[in-house]
Amino acid sequence: MASSFSFEIMQEIGVLSENDKGWRKELNLVSWNDRPAKFDLRDWAPNHEKMGKGITLSNEEFAQLKEIINQM
Amino acid sequence: MASSFSFEIMQEIGVLSENDKGWRKELNLVSWNDRPAKFDLRDWAPNHEKMGKGITLSNEEFAQLKEIINQM
Repeated sequence: MASSFSFEIMQEIGVLSENDKGWRKELNLVSWNDRPAKFDLRDWAPNHEKMGKGITLSNEEFAQLKEIINQM
Repeated sequence: MASSFSFEIMQEIGVLSENDKGWRKELNLVSWNDRPAKFDLRDWAPNHEKMGKGITLSNEEFAQLKEIINQM
């Protein structure tokens, strides 16, 4: 199946880790297909030239994650 | 390519959201292939019968995520 999509990293919030090959696990605000930006936790190659696996979180999910983490 | 793996949810930490079909985005501690448990942020069908996309975080990555979130 062919597919295409656009994305724009609106804000680089933070880096969780970096491996030997320079791939970094990052928390960003990303707009997919020109939709409103969502929080995005994902692996990226250097300079964001390739993206790896990750998940997006809505504002509500992100707020819930923060609450959960701070109650641990 | 055939593949198989085992997983065990060691601790259910929290639920970020639930959709119409009962799938939930959860933060858990999960052991993959009998390895030490890692933090895991992922979509799950009811009763964890199917898993969706997600990412795993090491202890160090999770600590970094907490620090980043609390500095926002």
